[in-house]
Amino acid sequence: MPERRSPEPRPDRWPPRPGAALWGLHAVAAAWTNPVRRCRALWLTDAGAEALTPALAEAKARGLDRPAPTPIERRAIDRALSPGTVHQGIVLDAAPLEAPSLDALIGRDRPLGCVILLDQVTDPHNVGAILRSAAVFGADAVVTTDRHAPEAAGALAKAASGACELVPLVRVPNLARAITDLKGAPLWCLGLDAGGARPLAAAAIDRPVALVLGAEGRGLRRLTRERCDELVSLPTGGDGFATLNVSTAAAVALYEVARQRRSTEGRA
Amino acid sequence: MPERRSPEPRPDRWPPRPGAALWGLHAVAAAWTNPVRRCRALWLTDAGAEALTPALAEAKARGLDRPAPTPIERRAIDRALSPGTVHQGIVLDAAPLEAPSLDALIGRDRPLGCVILLDQVTDPHNVGAILRSAAVFGADAVVTTDRHAPEAAGALAKAASGACELVPLVRVPNLARAITDLKGAPLWCLGLDAGGARPLAAAAIDRPVALVLGAEGRGLRRLTRERCDELVSLPTGGDGFATLNVSTAAAVALYEVARQRRSTEGRA
Repeated sequence: MPERRSPEPRPDRWPPRPGAALWGLHAVAAAWTNPVRRCRALWLTDAGAEALTPALAEAKARGLDRPAPTPIERRAIDRALSPGTVHQGIVLDAAPLEAPSLDALIGRDRPLGCVILLDQVTDPHNVGAILRSAAVFGADAVVTTDRHAPEAAGALAKAASGACELVPLVRVPNLARAITDLKGAPLWCLGLDAGGARPLAAAAIDRPVALVLGAEGRGLRRLTRERCDELVSLPTGGDGFATLNVSTAAAVALYEVARQRRSTEGRA
Repeated sequence: MPERRSPEPRPDRWPPRPGAALWGLHAVAAAWTNPVRRCRALWLTDAGAEALTPALAEAKARGLDRPAPTPIERRAIDRALSPGTVHQGIVLDAAPLEAPSLDALIGRDRPLGCVILLDQVTDPHNVGAILRSAAVFGADAVVTTDRHAPEAAGALAKAASGACELVPLVRVPNLARAITDLKGAPLWCLGLDAGGARPLAAAAIDRPVALVLGAEGRGLRRLTRERCDELVSLPTGGDGFATLNVSTAAAVALYEVARQRRSTEGRA
């Protein structure tokens, strides 16, 4: 690898800045090949370099401006990241993606079809898994509060498995106000709640919708619940043991929306 | 706490035997209050003891034979378990539950409604999350191969969040033969495969079914695919980014089965 030297402060200083690090094959490959993502430094073990080869080649073929990777030992990564982090020998320092504001999202040219709102879901693995399912089911955005929500990097990006590059993570100061704004878009705002009056499958989800989910255990806050157009449940068929993981509940709800739209199109 | 001494080898020696340890509030609370689960030793930090209080009281009220908990420091647990383990200050040494054989499952009195088969899904978090969704949606069992499948303890039990006590994890030497046996039960065996001829929602799932899922990336092995009655897909509505996490795919499939049965009952 040719040596690259510059008089400016080197961005490839180990370890990467907290909140800017991405790791794991899928998360880094997607960021590395995303033209709008600024990549500042990439560290690879031998195994990491081998796994990432197709993404490195793709970025090169597309002429993306990318720094030369820096070789690193697995143990150095293990020491720098939280214990137990599955980094697969691949760590990237990347500038955060600019997410649109809620106003920009609502005002965009292409009409909104489905937006997910998360009411104080704090676990980065859950938020990342929800972004992944949002990408799979073609949702337009995931909206969280500024506070009580994890950074769009690290463990969240790893769980999103590349979906951070596809689905904007929009942050708002106040979720209840965001619901009001989305209702004006207009989106039909459905709060998923164990006490929901009817099952999601019976709700009117053939129009643009917002799906509002709360943290496991706590659920939706009172003001969030009150602001929704309708509260719906996800019927399970099991008895008693009724605690779906929040990312599982989001995926099931996204599936139900996609299924009904597909069957509506089939009838049209 | 009164001192308990005995001439026999003490079972509460720290750390617990590998493969026998359960940790985390929900997994341990469910095991501790499960009358058929043999609990050999329980270690609690102060915070763990407080969180587990309702389960300790419930087991006592029900007269379950349970050892006295041993106080422990959080750091001692951190040192003994894998780095990054979320144990919540609660670790239990418990005898594994006896799972039924596939023959016993098929021959049981209550007819089978829905069984999940996993083709070399090795990640314990995924298998645990699938057990949790199986409990929520009332599936009868999860079947894995003897090899290439994780132990029903530790990280798997943590992700299952108590569902290990409710849904049997049946191990078989050969998954293709298990499919043949389940077809004879008779269950309609549906393989979830990106190349599935029709969507799961269009398949005949009003009868007893087995849902067969493979590992992400690899998918179902050839022999597994060939042995299924039918291959089905989960339509997503998104374009391109089409990799559902295997535990998410299982939850969506279980939801679809529950939804159709519910709507069939509604019509009846």
